Amino acid sequence: MNSFGKDYRTTIFGSSHGSGVGCVIEGVPAGTSLNLEAIQGELDRRRPGQSALTTQRKEGDRLEMQEGMLEDRATGSPLVFWVKNRDVDSSSYETYRRIPRPGHADYPARMKYAGYNDYRGGGQFSGRMTIPLVISGALARQILSKGGIEFYAHAVQVGSVRLEETLSVEEIRAGVESSPVRCAEPETARSMVQEVEAARKAGDSVGGVIECIVTGLPVGVGEPFYDSVESEISHLCFAVPAVKGIEFGSGFAAAGMRGSEHNDPYAISEGRVITETNNAGGIQGGLTNGMPVVFRVAIKPTSSITKLQKSVDLDEMEPAELRVTGRHDPCIVPRAVPVIENAAAAPLLDLMIRAGF
Amino acid sequence: MNSFGKDYRTTIFGSSHGSGVGCVIEGVPAGTSLNLEAIQGELDRRRPGQSALTTQRKEGDRLEMQEGMLEDRATGSPLVFWVKNRDVDSSSYETYRRIPRPGHADYPARMKYAGYNDYRGGGQFSGRMTIPLVISGALARQILSKGGIEFYAHAVQVGSVRLEETLSVEEIRAGVESSPVRCAEPETARSMVQEVEAARKAGDSVGGVIECIVTGLPVGVGEPFYDSVESEISHLCFAVPAVKGIEFGSGFAAAGMRGSEHNDPYAISEGRVITETNNAGGIQGGLTNGMPVVFRVAIKPTSSITKLQKSVDLDEMEPAELRVTGRHDPCIVPRAVPVIENAAAAPLLDLMIRAGF
Amino acid sequence: MNSFGKDYRTTIFGSSHGSGVGCVIEGVPAGTSLNLEAIQGELDRRRPGQSALTTQRKEGDRLEMQEGMLEDRATGSPLVFWVKNRDVDSSSYETYRRIPRPGHADYPARMKYAGYNDYRGGGQFSGRMTIPLVISGALARQILSKGGIEFYAHAVQVGSVRLEETLSVEEIRAGVESSPVRCAEPETARSMVQEVEAARKAGDSVGGVIECIVTGLPVGVGEPFYDSVESEISHLCFAVPAVKGIEFGSGFAAAGMRGSEHNDPYAISEGRVITETNNAGGIQGGLTNGMPVVFRVAIKPTSSITKLQKSVDLDEMEPAELRVTGRHDPCIVPRAVPVIENAAAAPLLDLMIRAGF
Amino acid sequence: MNSFGKDYRTTIFGSSHGSGVGCVIEGVPAGTSLNLEAIQGELDRRRPGQSALTTQRKEGDRLEMQEGMLEDRATGSPLVFWVKNRDVDSSSYETYRRIPRPGHADYPARMKYAGYNDYRGGGQFSGRMTIPLVISGALARQILSKGGIEFYAHAVQVGSVRLEETLSVEEIRAGVESSPVRCAEPETARSMVQEVEAARKAGDSVGGVIECIVTGLPVGVGEPFYDSVESEISHLCFAVPAVKGIEFGSGFAAAGMRGSEHNDPYAISEGRVITETNNAGGIQGGLTNGMPVVFRVAIKPTSSITKLQKSVDLDEMEPAELRVTGRHDPCIVPRAVPVIENAAAAPLLDLMIRAGF
Repeated sequence: MNSFGKDYRTTIFGSSHGSGVGCVIEGVPAGTSLNLEAIQGELDRRRPGQSALTTQRKEGDRLEMQEGMLEDRATGSPLVFWVKNRDVDSSSYETYRRIPRPGHADYPARMKYAGYNDYRGGGQFSGRMTIPLVISGALARQILSKGGIEFYAHAVQVGSVRLEETLSVEEIRAGVESSPVRCAEPETARSMVQEVEAARKAGDSVGGVIECIVTGLPVGVGEPFYDSVESEISHLCFAVPAVKGIEFGSGFAAAGMRGSEHNDPYAISEGRVITETNNAGGIQGGLTNGMPVVFRVAIKPTSSITKLQKSVDLDEMEPAELRVTGRHDPCIVPRAVPVIENAAAAPLLDLMIRAGF
Repeated sequence: MNSFGKDYRTTIFGSSHGSGVGCVIEGVPAGTSLNLEAIQGELDRRRPGQSALTTQRKEGDRLEMQEGMLEDRATGSPLVFWVKNRDVDSSSYETYRRIPRPGHADYPARMKYAGYNDYRGGGQFSGRMTIPLVISGALARQILSKGGIEFYAHAVQVGSVRLEETLSVEEIRAGVESSPVRCAEPETARSMVQEVEAARKAGDSVGGVIECIVTGLPVGVGEPFYDSVESEISHLCFAVPAVKGIEFGSGFAAAGMRGSEHNDPYAISEGRVITETNNAGGIQGGLTNGMPVVFRVAIKPTSSITKLQKSVDLDEMEPAELRVTGRHDPCIVPRAVPVIENAAAAPLLDLMIRAGF
Repeated sequence: MNSFGKDYRTTIFGSSHGSGVGCVIEGVPAGTSLNLEAIQGELDRRRPGQSALTTQRKEGDRLEMQEGMLEDRATGSPLVFWVKNRDVDSSSYETYRRIPRPGHADYPARMKYAGYNDYRGGGQFSGRMTIPLVISGALARQILSKGGIEFYAHAVQVGSVRLEETLSVEEIRAGVESSPVRCAEPETARSMVQEVEAARKAGDSVGGVIECIVTGLPVGVGEPFYDSVESEISHLCFAVPAVKGIEFGSGFAAAGMRGSEHNDPYAISEGRVITETNNAGGIQGGLTNGMPVVFRVAIKPTSSITKLQKSVDLDEMEPAELRVTGRHDPCIVPRAVPVIENAAAAPLLDLMIRAGF
Repeated sequence: MNSFGKDYRTTIFGSSHGSGVGCVIEGVPAGTSLNLEAIQGELDRRRPGQSALTTQRKEGDRLEMQEGMLEDRATGSPLVFWVKNRDVDSSSYETYRRIPRPGHADYPARMKYAGYNDYRGGGQFSGRMTIPLVISGALARQILSKGGIEFYAHAVQVGSVRLEETLSVEEIRAGVESSPVRCAEPETARSMVQEVEAARKAGDSVGGVIECIVTGLPVGVGEPFYDSVESEISHLCFAVPAVKGIEFGSGFAAAGMRGSEHNDPYAISEGRVITETNNAGGIQGGLTNGMPVVFRVAIKPTSSITKLQKSVDLDEMEPAELRVTGRHDPCIVPRAVPVIENAAAAPLLDLMIRAGF
């Protein structure tokens, strides 16, 4: 249903053009001190209107805490968060209900819910539903951070512009917020900005790839058989609209490698077992091996474009044309960076608790 | 834990060198007629020793039905299946417990379970655990098949050999069993066989990519927010050892496309809504759109190679070298084809029931 | 955690003296028309201050719908309800944190949450948490009512006053709201009122027994092995504060009966199978048998009494005396009647959906 | 479905006249040493044919361990247990399928499963399904026992014979196995034996009440809101066939008490907080308070009696008479004592783990 996690569990609710979006979070130990400003900070990184590259919908996305805290600490009862919708314009959506937008959930959602779904703004299929993902993840990161676990994500591809080198986590942290596309390498970032601008001018959009690195995880996180680290992270990432692929460590490149090349040799460094390479992306047999967990997600180009598109009229069952209006991101990658970075934290905290850490 | 699925639910158990592997399956309606021979047929496609390309471990992998049927029909109580282990040789595993095999779960499993895990044959991290996945999936396919839903998988890459063209489902079905690598295009299949043979002679291994196509799914399968079709399939595929990546439809290629190119235009064909292209891989907003669901998984090269490798001695905490002996597949892709093909069926049946189909 | 139900699922949250209480409800089919006024009506039956027999805390308990509806119908996304707390007086609770009230959760809750629980008003252990139970149940009843399933509850014992006869469901419905104690038999009800008044004057409290009858359930509701109808109803009823016992049909009296007396003979009536007696309380083997489901719950006397009581000072670990002040019900039974009546509906709807009805 | 527990989880399977019954148990930490003989000992207490008071079906009920252990210790993967059925006589059950036995699940099960259920021996509604409950509970008790938590159950009522005094746990342990009815007070036990013998001679049966006491639980076990200690224990007890009621502490007697009488005064004893009485049955607000948990379950008289009974012919939909043959217990209470005693251990271990103990 709308819950994820076994021991750290988030139930999300809301819709794009209803009164708001939010979540119930269970599993935070009583007495945990919570920094709501830091969660707001991550929402600010996700919110619309932050740069010329993003949609101009005006949403302050102010976090409201409804229940579960007393004097800045968790009480052990469920935490309830709420973010109101404010700048809602549902005028075009009657059209999309009848003439579905290519690439969107309009058509399958109408079929699934027999026409009763909240079609306004995409309803529960809107990118706005990633707000509770960010809340849940940012809160998880606060807890994980106390154990030395940190998350670093940035854009490594936008349209045809691809970052060829692999940055260190220090470089990512230092550079990611310097550019509106959230690629930490300045030169590449500038080309990416041009790529997005060009698409926008053409009434079009571009996709990209986000890389995320998680450091500090202990050895042995992950629950066989079904709940491998990859299974849990991918489950959550594919709930994020526009994600079309995910790979861990060497990923698809592994298909072309030999075992002798792909196997990461073990070594001992400062009394700890490490691997000399990290093709495994920090995961063997579904369990963390103590090396950084590395994964990349592919983001498709935004479906909402102003170019004229072919669709169908579902009431008349005949061909139709459609021009999507409204305020849309020409590239969702920059705003997806904090979403992926935070969202991955929730399943990892859950697996940590499940493994007894 | 060891269960997957909400309404069609499989709990798996067993180990590589214990008495056997099996599963409990819940959610099959009372009165469903079950064809155990067909399930055995899928196990035969997965089992070792079927060709020169696979491990020579001798396992008949005979399916035993323990409970849940009466006169070839499900009774509504849990179905229990069991496959005995027979050709077990645990002699090398004491070594691997101390000197973990690179690329395997030996090291993180020892850490996770404080040394008490069943290390023999990889225990519950063995590829043998895919037997219950095949059982559960093959049974799900029998039920789905009555609704016209069919699965087609084959190898599209083995090592450096890549199939450039996209085959039709008819071509896949016709050709997949003609070659021991399970690529349905004969020419490419021959090159793949050479690739595997070369790796084996070198005491090495190769990886690959498997493509799977599911036809006949109705519109609207998938459960927001967390249980998108991609989330569920990827969760299960990443439980399969050696999978390092997954992509749906255009996948990672979507990152480099423009929205106008990626969006699949709607059209009407024979009174039904279709899309003219299928970059979405049959899934929009996490829901099926009535087009074939298409995904690809990346398989890493088998970790067990006979070449000398660098490892560490965990008891002495010092560097060590290791040569993995025993009977191993130089390429796991051919046997992984039926695993992926069947395994994807379980989450899809589960989502079908959840959506009320 | 804080969720109950598999297919009709309610996650509850909130606290007695925080901002409010509420719930997230999943599993209501898109398009279901919902009558919020009827839910408010059930909240009104539960709310404080409705008669001289209940606490004088002033709470309007107005239902707010936050998300999940469009034009009076469910959209298929989670329904979110919220009831604000208004008349909050937390002044005494600092005392109870240190000197726990006998019979309350103060002491074990402080221990469980290491002192970080929201102790004000009993926090999440307050009777106020039954508000979301009523919301969830009243909504379930609307859906069940369309299938002819109805709920009838009233008080059959208050203190030493016990209703000896068994009323028909028509009599219960006709009489239950005529008396502030919610016993449908007027004579007995009057004695019960006196019993409550006497206890109140003495600074004391009384308990009672509530009987609930559910009619119209089809045959075969209930899910073996663990989720018998009794298991599900009792699980939920024991979540209601003050419930100390539950029995179905003949209940504890069955212990003294012979099988020939207890077994309900089958008969045929108007083409349907019925039983001539209903010692089974409508449930055989954990499944409904088509007869009315009948159960009774025992409610202990309200723990909050104004008489001086023995307790301990947890900070000093020494004996202490305590006089509980504040506004409390001398008998919770009258307000528990709608709680039990509604609360039982949620697990029954869940089991109905699970059984495919 | 067929699983119970969140962190200590048992999935049960099997049927009365199929090949056997068993369970999968998850949540036992790797390295836990397991005493299978002790589990067998509890099965021996439950098994048929142990005295003249029980059914003469001959079943050795030998425990087989299929998977999950290595050298007497849990490996961290699921534990699989199996008990074969041997002395199976299904001859009468074709009759009961058509003419259902009053008091049994025959009729609702046939309706629920559209006639496809395994009707032989009651299938999955048989008392034989309590074997895996005993296995799971006996294993849980081994783990709990290390923390000083112990279980004591005995019969306090059989038919009209009721034990008026409350025995200490030492008396229960010392006396429970001295009598075939498993009442620890010898005088009462003798009367109970006569009560059962009288019923058997009359071709009839009797019910009873079992009391269970759990000592040594720490303060704060139980998970609000839904998973109170009472909720979890009652959920499981009502899965046991023939249970019609449950009460904790003062139970139904609480209905007639005043608050000043029912509230258990706190006191300090040897540096610990205790209550001077235990009307709460060791549970306040759904949480353990450190005092013994006390509960009683009502067991109905065995449904299978040899007296002629009224039933219906479901094929012809007309009245019919039935005389139940076969080997049945004239009173199930003696064998239910170890079932209840062990079964309660599984949810308590689960709650302990969930609470972080």
